Amino acid sequence: PYQRTVHDFFISNELREELQKKSEATRQVMPTAGLPRLDREKFHSLVPLDTNNNKSAAVFGFPSWVYKAQKEDGKYYVLRRLEGFRLSNAGAIAKIKEWKHVYNGGVVSVVNAFTTQAFGDSSLIFVYNYHPMSKTLAEYHFAPTNRYGHRAPANEQVLWSYVVQIASAIKAVHGNHLAVRCLDASKVILTEKNRVRLSACAVLDVVQFEANRPMQELQQEDFLLFGRLMLSLASNNPHIITAKISVDGLLRAYTPDFRSAISWLLTPAHIPGSKNITDFLASISSHLVTSYDMVLHAEDALRTDLYRELENGRLVRLLTKLDFINERPEYEGDMKWSEYGERYILKLFRDYVFHAIDAETRRPKLDLGHVLVCLNKLDAGTNEQIRLDSQDGVSSIIVTYKELKKQAILAFADLEKRAGAKGGRY
Amino acid sequence: PYQRTVHDFFISNELREELQKKSEATRQVMPTAGLPRLDREKFHSLVPLDTNNNKSAAVFGFPSWVYKAQKEDGKYYVLRRLEGFRLSNAGAIAKIKEWKHVYNGGVVSVVNAFTTQAFGDSSLIFVYNYHPMSKTLAEYHFAPTNRYGHRAPANEQVLWSYVVQIASAIKAVHGNHLAVRCLDASKVILTEKNRVRLSACAVLDVVQFEANRPMQELQQEDFLLFGRLMLSLASNNPHIITAKISVDGLLRAYTPDFRSAISWLLTPAHIPGSKNITDFLASISSHLVTSYDMVLHAEDALRTDLYRELENGRLVRLLTKLDFINERPEYEGDMKWSEYGERYILKLFRDYVFHAIDAETRRPKLDLGHVLVCLNKLDAGTNEQIRLDSQDGVSSIIVTYKELKKQAILAFADLEKRAGAKGGRY
Ligand SMILES: Nc1ncnc2c1ncn2[C@@H]1O[C@H](COP(=O)(O)OP(=O)(O)OP(=O)(O)O)[C@@H](O)[C@H]1O
Ligand SMILES: Nc1ncnc2c1ncn2[C@@H]1O[C@H](COP(=O)(O)OP(=O)(O)OP(=O)(O)O)[C@@H](O)[C@H]1O
Ligand SMILES: [Mg+2]
Ligand SMILES: [Mg+2]
Repeated sequence: PYQRTVHDFFISNELREELQKKSEATRQVMPTAGLPRLDREKFHSLVPLDTNNNKSAAVFGFPSWVYKAQKEDGKYYVLRRLEGFRLSNAGAIAKIKEWKHVYNGGVVSVVNAFTTQAFGDSSLIFVYNYHPMSKTLAEYHFAPTNRYGHRAPANEQVLWSYVVQIASAIKAVHGNHLAVRCLDASKVILTEKNRVRLSACAVLDVVQFEANRPMQELQQEDFLLFGRLMLSLASNNPHIITAKISVDGLLRAYTPDFRSAISWLLTPAHIPGSKNITDFLASISSHLVTSYDMVLHAEDALRTDLYRELENGRLVRLLTKLDFINERPEYEGDMKWSEYGERYILKLFRDYVFHAIDAETRRPKLDLGHVLVCLNKLDAGTNEQIRLDSQDGVSSIIVTYKELKKQAILAFADLEKRAGAKGGRY
Repeated sequence: PYQRTVHDFFISNELREELQKKSEATRQVMPTAGLPRLDREKFHSLVPLDTNNNKSAAVFGFPSWVYKAQKEDGKYYVLRRLEGFRLSNAGAIAKIKEWKHVYNGGVVSVVNAFTTQAFGDSSLIFVYNYHPMSKTLAEYHFAPTNRYGHRAPANEQVLWSYVVQIASAIKAVHGNHLAVRCLDASKVILTEKNRVRLSACAVLDVVQFEANRPMQELQQEDFLLFGRLMLSLASNNPHIITAKISVDGLLRAYTPDFRSAISWLLTPAHIPGSKNITDFLASISSHLVTSYDMVLHAEDALRTDLYRELENGRLVRLLTKLDFINERPEYEGDMKWSEYGERYILKLFRDYVFHAIDAETRRPKLDLGHVLVCLNKLDAGTNEQIRLDSQDGVSSIIVTYKELKKQAILAFADLEKRAGAKGGRY
């Protein structure tokens, strides 16, 4: 990976596009959305993220809405709003604190929660980290897309990767003496290719605070919810009823390994025994290793991309410097920049790099590769010599990149002095 | 993470430095190294990577040397040379083929092997992927660095991460019906922070081909070598003799979990039974999950960095375009670029971006932030209006970025036409 040609100077188009889209989604604003500012909590520029308009209260018992919002400090967050919720017990919101300790790649971080009247009702708001361009597993797997209105069930390899990530997330949650409680396919989001995160943690802890159910019971329930989620994805059926189904029948197309993992999740422990996530993880450790190695490879690939991009930041600074010093109106009549001055070669170099004309065809040469090579040599200050022709083509000078670099540094230092700036800023 | 100010426009300094050093190490050449070109195999520009000069034959039975080399296609590789090796059985080198199937984040990929007389002796060469700036675990952990000449033993968290990575690597190797055979601390390399890779795979398969030992026996031996490696790192002792030692005694400072994992590795199976890596991985699954989550976080962080850098590639292209079109000598006298032509605003814009003068102090403004903001607005073609002053400061024009973008596109298209280039190249 550690070699480069002009062709792989820039990042792969696919990844560039993904990041570009995310960047646009992040910056997107909706002037006419008619949503309030939350001045007390310092959020503004709310943009609705829900793709459907159904006021379903199925998951939380209250209609819920999701917005992207910008905080005063410039950062973006997601606000999940439960409409018409009245807080009757102040202790309920304190539950949020415990969630702040959960730091896991499979859990959308819970930032805060508060109530507000700003929407014209009494709303409960949860603040989460923002992951641009996310889709819920339901949107991704259950949305009808082919011409028969069906989607093929997810393949086993992808499902195993979900199983591993969600199990790791549950371990982090249970390890903090909490329970996920909400593992609906509409509340697990895909944030990058095959990366899933639990997106609605803490909500039910606040909303059903009064019920005061034992944590142990809720954690045991998580296994059941987890099993149901995987079963519905595997059988491509959003509305599975697990009362009296045959897992083996539904999962005929999958390996025995997969079927037994799902069965384990769906089978309650014999009371007073209990199941725990550590045992589950040990039982799927070979899939865990596979996922682990996949992430290592992904990390290596990202590092290589970053390495490719690294040079661009340097070139932006260099190009900017050259543009700062070249052709400044105030240099008209400055001896140094005249045909006999020591800066004159910088002017000729600029022409050499950007204004080259093909000797035979007399056509302009627009070769990005040529530009990059020249700039890199300038930056390195090599001993290589080049011939710079005067604009009228009559005379020419032989000069090394080393000399050019020296003059560029002097010219910029000069300019910095005149600007009253301290050196070494670039 | 998805928000940015001028301050986090560029990548973090630490990571930038790491990548920069790797880039330099990769490109480094040694004109006086006196090493041969391998013309038949198309390798040149060999640079020795060994930091010590000891002609030790301890690991392979032959003195060995490691070189960085560039191949004809421009890519870099590592060559490991065994000095004075005579190939007596042609089948030995064929073993390499099986290694090409091993694709794992913890194994340095084996590319090829051949014999050569180019070094003035009969040498056996193994070709591997190149990981710039690597250090061996021995160099990293056993090199005396503090003023007492001792290094503190590695902490348990780091060791667990090695255990997980090496176990995952062994799984990939054993899964391909091969054995690592060489797990010396000098043959496991650190390629990035806490990332380890097995660096000398396949060597002993070729060198000890004649011995023809059963694979099953070699795989069982891998566990012992793995255990010894971890024990020597944990006890900070490169020369451990495992014959009659007390693991628990040596590992007093470590958790029972760690001690029992190492003991398992060091204890041979009761014949005719055998140990397998899958069982080991299941037994350390909770550490596997921890490592897994750490890599997920590392992946997220790299993605954020890449997102930050993304814009630079775009800006390099934009700056280059502007430099292509501005101040071309052949435009002297071109009506379009005259004070009354439609391209004139591009000239004024260039002055606005790069040649700005502070209105009060009359000093040049050298503000990278200003440049970046202007270029981004130009690229977006916003409706925002700016006032461009003529160079003599007498007249001025109000113009939108949209209009500027339009003129820049037209000017470049014009130039491309004259260059005879097809559009859409940038
Ligand atoms: N933390 C987040 N960052 C970015 N997008 C998110 C985040 N959490 C949720 N979303 C997105 O917001 C949208 C709405 O989420 P929501 O949970 O309301 O799903 P839904 O399909 O509308 O389900 P329901 O009918 O229960 O409201 C989804 O597209 C989801 O991907
Ligand atoms: N694939 C590789 N990519 C980059 N560097 C490597 C690679 N393999 C080995 N190296 C580096 O080459 C150097 C020499 O490796 P080598 O295996 O010879 O270690 P050593 O300490 O010299 O041991 P020995 O005494 O057995 O030769 C080490 O610094 C190592 O990090
Ligand atoms: Mg919704
Ligand atoms: Mg060596």
